[in-house]
Amino acid sequence: MVFWKRLFSNSDAIDAPAEASLFEGDLFGEISDPRKGSDLNPERTGVSRIYFSKRREIDLYELEELCDSVGWARRPLRKVKKALQFSFLVVSMWQVKGNKQRLIGFARATSDCAFNATIWDVVVHPAFQKQGLGKALMKYTIESLRKQDISNITLFADPQVIDFYRNLGFILEPEGIKGMFWYPD
Amino acid sequence: MVFWKRLFSNSDAIDAPAEASLFEGDLFGEISDPRKGSDLNPERTGVSRIYFSKRREIDLYELEELCDSVGWARRPLRKVKKALQFSFLVVSMWQVKGNKQRLIGFARATSDCAFNATIWDVVVHPAFQKQGLGKALMKYTIESLRKQDISNITLFADPQVIDFYRNLGFILEPEGIKGMFWYPD
Repeated sequence: MVFWKRLFSNSDAIDAPAEASLFEGDLFGEISDPRKGSDLNPERTGVSRIYFSKRREIDLYELEELCDSVGWARRPLRKVKKALQFSFLVVSMWQVKGNKQRLIGFARATSDCAFNATIWDVVVHPAFQKQGLGKALMKYTIESLRKQDISNITLFADPQVIDFYRNLGFILEPEGIKGMFWYPD
Repeated sequence: MVFWKRLFSNSDAIDAPAEASLFEGDLFGEISDPRKGSDLNPERTGVSRIYFSKRREIDLYELEELCDSVGWARRPLRKVKKALQFSFLVVSMWQVKGNKQRLIGFARATSDCAFNATIWDVVVHPAFQKQGLGKALMKYTIESLRKQDISNITLFADPQVIDFYRNLGFILEPEGIKGMFWYPD
């Protein structure tokens, strides 16, 4: 079990250590792992911090590793690179510990920059699931889209995550609207 | 009742009148209205042609009129303009008769330019419905997305158009995937 506590990176002053500010992103919270509290290796003990970033320059191999961790089918990196470039929003979630940073979550959205956005590829590394970090990632994503005046945020949910999205305020099939997919033969 | 016959604008030679070539777009077919066959006004008689265009420069008032014709809620033209600009694909369908052209259908898609596209705002003017033109518009849209190597084409369908999309090869909720929507409070 891992615990995190929410910090505030904007108006509220926090006592952030110097190394934390090296990471380019929005500080979300602090995470501490009691299993590792007695470990003497400083790389593995104590507190790490969770950041969100909207930078598109993500190591594609690191992203592939994250997607592998949840069992997604591999995709050509050339196309992944293009998808990151042309997504309206790319959000990554990072664990930062000393000068080490690890990609632990990801989401992106396509959009017309005016009315609609569609969220794709939401993923949290299994070691960081069940701690509210997926919720935090989605809230950050929604907030980022709202800041850009997008009012209709959509997604296609697998059956097992419908309740997760419902708890975040997503409405299932409003007015009977159904998701439909077309694939090439 | 209006009839159209499909023409071929590419490999097959067609005997196109000079004025038809003035329209910038892909010729789809010919339409003739027997109700008007005996009319003596040349603007209202004979044959007109149906074109598709991917040009983004659409008269916003004409588009609004088309959307009005099917009863959609009006949207700020400033945002419509931005949505057209930032959509991945914009398809318009036109009736061309002599030197007159009329916007009779529309569809657009957002995309990451790599994997996914989502089709929005599919509309055919009521006077041109029930003639296969909506189907033709969608086929043109799908074909255009396929040409750009998009393999996952998605949309959110209102209950009354699910069969229409199903007939075009769209699959309803594959593997239980559901459409979900988030709106601001």
